[in-house]
Amino acid sequence: MPQNKAFILASRPSREVPAGPHNFQLVEREAAAPGEGEVLVRHHYLSLDPYMRGRMNDGKSYAQPQPLGEVMIGGTVGEVVASRNPRFAVGDRVVGTGGWQLYGLSDGKGLRKIEPGTPIQAWLGPVGMPGVTAWYGVTQIIAPKAGETVLVSAATGAVGSVVGQLVKLAGARAVGIAGGPEKCAFAVSDLGYDACVDHRDVDFPARLKEAVPDGINGLFENVGGEPFRQAMRRLNPFSRIALCGLVSSGYDGTPTPLPDVRVLLDTRSRLEGFIVSDHLSVWPQALSELAGHVAAGRLRWRESVAEGLEAAPQAFFAMLKGGNFGKQLVKLI
Amino acid sequence: MPQNKAFILASRPSREVPAGPHNFQLVEREAAAPGEGEVLVRHHYLSLDPYMRGRMNDGKSYAQPQPLGEVMIGGTVGEVVASRNPRFAVGDRVVGTGGWQLYGLSDGKGLRKIEPGTPIQAWLGPVGMPGVTAWYGVTQIIAPKAGETVLVSAATGAVGSVVGQLVKLAGARAVGIAGGPEKCAFAVSDLGYDACVDHRDVDFPARLKEAVPDGINGLFENVGGEPFRQAMRRLNPFSRIALCGLVSSGYDGTPTPLPDVRVLLDTRSRLEGFIVSDHLSVWPQALSELAGHVAAGRLRWRESVAEGLEAAPQAFFAMLKGGNFGKQLVKLI
Repeated sequence: MPQNKAFILASRPSREVPAGPHNFQLVEREAAAPGEGEVLVRHHYLSLDPYMRGRMNDGKSYAQPQPLGEVMIGGTVGEVVASRNPRFAVGDRVVGTGGWQLYGLSDGKGLRKIEPGTPIQAWLGPVGMPGVTAWYGVTQIIAPKAGETVLVSAATGAVGSVVGQLVKLAGARAVGIAGGPEKCAFAVSDLGYDACVDHRDVDFPARLKEAVPDGINGLFENVGGEPFRQAMRRLNPFSRIALCGLVSSGYDGTPTPLPDVRVLLDTRSRLEGFIVSDHLSVWPQALSELAGHVAAGRLRWRESVAEGLEAAPQAFFAMLKGGNFGKQLVKLI
Repeated sequence: MPQNKAFILASRPSREVPAGPHNFQLVEREAAAPGEGEVLVRHHYLSLDPYMRGRMNDGKSYAQPQPLGEVMIGGTVGEVVASRNPRFAVGDRVVGTGGWQLYGLSDGKGLRKIEPGTPIQAWLGPVGMPGVTAWYGVTQIIAPKAGETVLVSAATGAVGSVVGQLVKLAGARAVGIAGGPEKCAFAVSDLGYDACVDHRDVDFPARLKEAVPDGINGLFENVGGEPFRQAMRRLNPFSRIALCGLVSSGYDGTPTPLPDVRVLLDTRSRLEGFIVSDHLSVWPQALSELAGHVAAGRLRWRESVAEGLEAAPQAFFAMLKGGNFGKQLVKLI
């Protein structure tokens, strides 16, 4: 069998020693041969996503912590190289949760064959978990109506870039928040946002107010922190807030307070936290619609690709600080 | 025409001079004779409700401020004493928004005839605005399932008392929060709450935790402040929070912060502010169901009755501090 390389979670972050690449350890061993019903997948791309930071902790969260000493969890696309499962043949392209490693063994559960036509790594992005996350928040929580304004944090990220385009497809106005002029320019020129505000701008509150002169009707929140508090000041009556992530603050335990819940009463708004893995029943519909948009050229996206498994830990922590630009991938082949 | 007495809003509260009875002024004048299409109603009861405090302010809120120099807004029940409107006859019992006065002139809009059978003042309580408020939050936002636990603040108040009983009728567990042992005892013995916790208890957080050993699935929030923050620590996954009022804090501008919105993400919960007057389309269904419960003896309530219009300002501010016990009314006849 081929030689495998994998990152295991070797230690957890603590108050004294914050999270960093040192928490991961690279191990090498021969890939396991598939047993009855199993397949071996050679991974082409690993997806790096903010939720992984939460899994590094031992505390109570919505998900089980990543066990120490085991291969770090992660979405992967690749090609079947050995199969003892009748549903998969050698050469099939598949998407699954193979983890931070070159080869993944699977019993076929949670492994899906992907259709030709789109680049393989799109199944980790706009037609993968980030895309479904965007689809769920936009269609099931915000439900933008034509003429409304929806504000999107992390506007050029893997989720946010799809959110903005789905909002536009619904006939609403999409306004982004992103870090730096380059991302903001891309949001408008390539992703179709009507405007994008740089949260690093010293006049961010004033710039945001100018960008949404009629207030907002929806907010897709990925980040938290001060930009979130400013966004909450722009709510119109009957706003819907899809709370998808708090990457700027929460993973290290820094809270994102809401200074006064009265804003939700005065505007009769709805703030809803969601995790897309709770809603598996809508995935087929979501993926079908997203694949249709991609095939028709209605969805664009951008990727940050780190080269080689060894680059994963650094790329992951850079992404948490906003260092990526678009969907963060690791190319493994 | 008979002599009328009315309270007008004479001044607004300010940071220097907080809200109090001094903001109202009693005026006497002859009641107006009904013009074509109008009716004159002799009020029997005036309803005192927390929303009125918000109307005293000039600031931006969900409602228009009460104009200075005009009769203070308020729900009333009474009897038609003169009519030039074919829909109403002298002697009809009606519910409307007649304001803080003995006699109200109406063009018939917003005036409803009430059926005999229930005490007239019930149309300001369990089969009036407070009842519909409870019905909306329970049925349209919390939607309790059998076996779930719903926590209710201001558990013995005009709204809360109906909330608790509707939760029980849905087959769920109802746990109240109220101020003082007398209200808590009444909540359990008369309103059917499974438990009630005194928010004045020095060990309130521990008592609350004991009262909801399996956490909560729903929260009907009328009050805000520290009890709200403690309640938010008890959320189970997929909780629904109906944010109906923030009487303890907000009317005087004291904020009710949420220390970390992450709790809504980790529990994938929904927090929704609502005002029952936004949802006029559901009132007929709500009133019909509530009247059915009252007629069948399934809804109990308690009243605090102040005697005479002159007592209204004192009774109103006492209510805002929790001095009432049940629905606060002013008897005008």
